[in-house]
Amino acid sequence: MKVAMIGLGSVGRGVAGMVAQKRPGITVTGIADSKGGRIDSDGVDLFEVLEKKQKTGSCGDKKISASDVVKNADYDALVEVTPTNASTGEPGLGYIRQAIGRKKHVVTSNKGPIALAYKDLRIRAQKNGVALRYEATVGGAIPIFHTIEHGLAGNEILAIFGVLNGTCNFILTRMADEGLTYEQALLEAREMGYAEADPTYDVQGIDAAIKLVILANTIWGNSITLKDVNRTGIDLLTPDALHLAEEEDCTIRLIAEAIPKKGLLRVSPRIIEKNHPLVVEGTLNAITIETDMAKEITLIGKGAGSIETASAVIGDLLYIRDRYVERA
Amino acid sequence: MKVAMIGLGSVGRGVAGMVAQKRPGITVTGIADSKGGRIDSDGVDLFEVLEKKQKTGSCGDKKISASDVVKNADYDALVEVTPTNASTGEPGLGYIRQAIGRKKHVVTSNKGPIALAYKDLRIRAQKNGVALRYEATVGGAIPIFHTIEHGLAGNEILAIFGVLNGTCNFILTRMADEGLTYEQALLEAREMGYAEADPTYDVQGIDAAIKLVILANTIWGNSITLKDVNRTGIDLLTPDALHLAEEEDCTIRLIAEAIPKKGLLRVSPRIIEKNHPLVVEGTLNAITIETDMAKEITLIGKGAGSIETASAVIGDLLYIRDRYVERA
Repeated sequence: MKVAMIGLGSVGRGVAGMVAQKRPGITVTGIADSKGGRIDSDGVDLFEVLEKKQKTGSCGDKKISASDVVKNADYDALVEVTPTNASTGEPGLGYIRQAIGRKKHVVTSNKGPIALAYKDLRIRAQKNGVALRYEATVGGAIPIFHTIEHGLAGNEILAIFGVLNGTCNFILTRMADEGLTYEQALLEAREMGYAEADPTYDVQGIDAAIKLVILANTIWGNSITLKDVNRTGIDLLTPDALHLAEEEDCTIRLIAEAIPKKGLLRVSPRIIEKNHPLVVEGTLNAITIETDMAKEITLIGKGAGSIETASAVIGDLLYIRDRYVERA
Repeated sequence: MKVAMIGLGSVGRGVAGMVAQKRPGITVTGIADSKGGRIDSDGVDLFEVLEKKQKTGSCGDKKISASDVVKNADYDALVEVTPTNASTGEPGLGYIRQAIGRKKHVVTSNKGPIALAYKDLRIRAQKNGVALRYEATVGGAIPIFHTIEHGLAGNEILAIFGVLNGTCNFILTRMADEGLTYEQALLEAREMGYAEADPTYDVQGIDAAIKLVILANTIWGNSITLKDVNRTGIDLLTPDALHLAEEEDCTIRLIAEAIPKKGLLRVSPRIIEKNHPLVVEGTLNAITIETDMAKEITLIGKGAGSIETASAVIGDLLYIRDRYVERA
């Protein structure tokens, strides 16, 4: 299968490195970052690309843009792994639309386009007979969409509950374990590289809410957006609240919930029994799917990380290869 | 898709009831229990079958045997849900071989045939171009095989750890929570219907070891058998051992482990940190898959139950329908 890749940040480098090492029958015929790109129908040398990126900050020729690669390279599937822009979805959204327009399959780890334009992209993909897959957008390495599609096929999904933001979960874990204040735990998260300089996106539950939107739209075919999510962050949480939870053998976690029957779509800190499967430690993510037959199924795994997220992207690519490309 | 079903115990009744209610495009053209059967190429009325089974103890005509249904009915896939016989695999093993010989796909919840004759059945299925699926054999509703095949495609599986027996997990949970002795907790498990009159199969780790054999053979393509598993049960465990674990913020769980690099294949009570994802309560099951890219992914869910196990069987059937039958 021939693949074009846009984006060589943490996820892109993970994907490129794993494809180079594992050689899972994928040839990268075009690749670009924000500074340049290269196109080679015989397959670019990914080890060389990664070395050049590390040494020079760019992977290719300044005269070849990401858009050139999307428009002109010869590929079966586009891997779109540029950073999330939650307000416009760009530039990823444009690349995805271009690729679908060329009847190319798309795999993305970019939450922006999927949260903002799910229905439009789904319709375009269907019309063009191509796959649009985005396992890496929610829960990092956790194969949540594969599980819903295949593992739980035949089940009606009644509700979904998730710990979808590793930064918040790390802060809450540290506050509970060590009695830290929110500010102290946030500082620690920053020192460990788990929180950005501006942590708003994580601690106010925006990131978790975006992931909830993606989950809900996929499962129930809705067209909900970030504005539809009732959202409370963890930034006003006090150690006292955690102490009180502790006394009842409970703790507090930032839980994203969607329960269609109750019209509930919410991200907020919830008191939850310590032995509940969703209570995971540190930067882990966890998702519980409530269904009519299987009842509650919980998946736990790493919510971030270069190689971990690459696992989700490569899983999607192999799915497309087995399902679409080999048949053709 | 046309399906023949053998077995109308807890799992079979769950599958028949769910197929009757949900009508997922499956027509049952033959059905049998140990006392009789019926064949109807237009589709048997499953509500009537279930009613007759409840009232008379059998689902059909005494003159039509399960073997007649397997041999003579017109179907695409056999659903083989007879009880597990861990020494011979029969009668399920024979039915499965007959169906594969007729070039029929097979879905089973029966651990015996898969633990005893995996390689033989896999080869026969491949030769005849049919699917052999057994999601329900391990972890009840947990879609472990779908997750390994699809969600974690491209990953190398390095190790697997599981809480695979709900009876043992219930007993250990009650011993830890209430300070009960093993005998007291076993009595409670019996009263709740979680343990058989003869609990040997569960408490000595045989059931968990059989499931470990199925997992390991599937993942690594081995031909290991129950005898290869180093096995210790929970029947000699004392409340003191649990107290000692408790002092270290740990508990004890019956863990099934397979780590090929260490040559380890073991079922035994292990001391494990309380906040480890594998530490689940009551009759829940949990499985951690350790891989090179996704790292540790844990799945938690109901390990037993009529409808829960039916979820796994129906998921397998729909997979076969989408992958094989609709294409044909």
